[in-house]
Amino acid sequence: MMTFDIEHFIRPVRKEMELFRKEFAASLRSDIALINEIADYILDQKSKRIRPILVLLSAKLCGQPNQATIVSASLVELLHTATLIHDDIIDDSFTRRGVPSVNAVWKNKVSVLMGDYLFSRSLTNMLRLRNYKALDLLSKISESLSSGEIFQLAKSSDNGMDEENYFRMIWLKTASLFAGSCKVGAFSVSGKSEEAEALWEYGKNLGMAFQIKDDLFDYIAKEEDIGKPIGRDLKANLITLPLLHVLEKMDASESRSIREGIRNGLEPDEVQKINELIATGGGVRYTEEKLKEISEKAVQSLAVFPDSEVKQCLLDFIVFNQQRIS
Amino acid sequence: MMTFDIEHFIRPVRKEMELFRKEFAASLRSDIALINEIADYILDQKSKRIRPILVLLSAKLCGQPNQATIVSASLVELLHTATLIHDDIIDDSFTRRGVPSVNAVWKNKVSVLMGDYLFSRSLTNMLRLRNYKALDLLSKISESLSSGEIFQLAKSSDNGMDEENYFRMIWLKTASLFAGSCKVGAFSVSGKSEEAEALWEYGKNLGMAFQIKDDLFDYIAKEEDIGKPIGRDLKANLITLPLLHVLEKMDASESRSIREGIRNGLEPDEVQKINELIATGGGVRYTEEKLKEISEKAVQSLAVFPDSEVKQCLLDFIVFNQQRIS
Repeated sequence: MMTFDIEHFIRPVRKEMELFRKEFAASLRSDIALINEIADYILDQKSKRIRPILVLLSAKLCGQPNQATIVSASLVELLHTATLIHDDIIDDSFTRRGVPSVNAVWKNKVSVLMGDYLFSRSLTNMLRLRNYKALDLLSKISESLSSGEIFQLAKSSDNGMDEENYFRMIWLKTASLFAGSCKVGAFSVSGKSEEAEALWEYGKNLGMAFQIKDDLFDYIAKEEDIGKPIGRDLKANLITLPLLHVLEKMDASESRSIREGIRNGLEPDEVQKINELIATGGGVRYTEEKLKEISEKAVQSLAVFPDSEVKQCLLDFIVFNQQRIS
Repeated sequence: MMTFDIEHFIRPVRKEMELFRKEFAASLRSDIALINEIADYILDQKSKRIRPILVLLSAKLCGQPNQATIVSASLVELLHTATLIHDDIIDDSFTRRGVPSVNAVWKNKVSVLMGDYLFSRSLTNMLRLRNYKALDLLSKISESLSSGEIFQLAKSSDNGMDEENYFRMIWLKTASLFAGSCKVGAFSVSGKSEEAEALWEYGKNLGMAFQIKDDLFDYIAKEEDIGKPIGRDLKANLITLPLLHVLEKMDASESRSIREGIRNGLEPDEVQKINELIATGGGVRYTEEKLKEISEKAVQSLAVFPDSEVKQCLLDFIVFNQQRIS
């Protein structure tokens, strides 16, 4: 089986990726010293820049990337970076990609504001597109991101997280921005609406698959690979698909008692016990099947496009996600 | 001397204010139950709705308020509400207008996200204006709001807060949205650019005066009037004009030692001592003079408009701010 590193996906859009990097760095600049200091810290962090790559590849699939493509790539990354900073506050997470998170270095106060600032910068950059179709899309997605996280918190505390709500949640909080990145890439080169819709579907399925893979990591990854503690979701009262599958097969009272335990905070031996439940109940296997199913949907979404190097790259991305270990 | 209550300012735009209330309530709706629950809580709180009133009055001063005026009034209030929710997290403030703040009821996690959600809703509403002039203005202001707060935190911790930086800070974090509210009101009725600029200046000066008045409260107000503890800014390491004036007259080492004390957290007797310093050093008197000066500038900003009921209302607002006790 072919394995890919992130470099593989940059190859067809190397020049555009360089322009993106410059644009992104420039869009973080401010005349306030502390903002620049945090911006430098963010720029120094290793990041795969998945969403900008999706913008660039999608644009290239539909036409010739241009300045609007570069601005779009930068603004989706600004939006993503803003949500990451706020996510780390919400999850009380003090590491990100193996290094101290912004809230660990500058505390929550500055981090709340820095997220807000990046969000505003993203908005300012959106407006440079002078394209209401793209703006309407992006504003809806920015609503999705926060409402998805709120939905997750609400359903985690009212016992309402089930498989249907799980898929709704990962659509809102993760896949919507993948879908939006692909579609706005198509918009930037005035792609046909059939193409934009196909890329939207592709991004949606890829994004769902991406989040499912991330949720699997909480049960099966190595801590040194993903740069954050294993079992963190579980400890943070976040019930994801591997556990949901097992809970839904249990009788109601047993499932309720486990949900209650998670909500009240787990001891290490209880985390261990849940891990065993998931193993014996087939929670990981079920989740891997779902991942495969959605990944196949992502492949089918691209059927309208003729074969090309760029299309192959987008197809490879689906495999890359299935294989990644961090 | 005339005294005013907030009703006075609603009178010329009563019908529009009713439309604003409906629009604002509708724009908070979501299909996620927890969001609606928090939205209802926010709508139940007493609020003067100063910024929407400024939008409506400014529009009426330049023409006939219309649907764009109502949407503008709603979106500036959304933006303001988002920043209030985040401000309460940043200030560790558990009351707002005398009732528990959103972060006190739902904790910081939900509050960070609810602020983000409202911010996104504000953006979605901006786009309904289909007016790039207004959008560019509003995106710049939303950047100002967070960068002003970051600037305040930075200058409070690096001894860099001086009078010049204080005025820059209150422009960014408060007055920019007042100025923007007035200008976007003018834009909504396609007011002449001379009128829009005059209203911008008016809003800017009124907003600065408003923040100066708020900062005075930390030293002179009654706790039961303002619905939050006195001396809170000081305890939160926020150095505002009354204290700055006194610090700038001291010799450098004495001033440095007071700043250090504030940064490290003050005991009640130290707060008392600083209050005495401000009283003997004329900090409150100096700040009141500045307030008067800027209020007069706000009056002059409106000189281009012929006399009218609406203009008088905007002039009365300046007096209202000078007189208010909460």
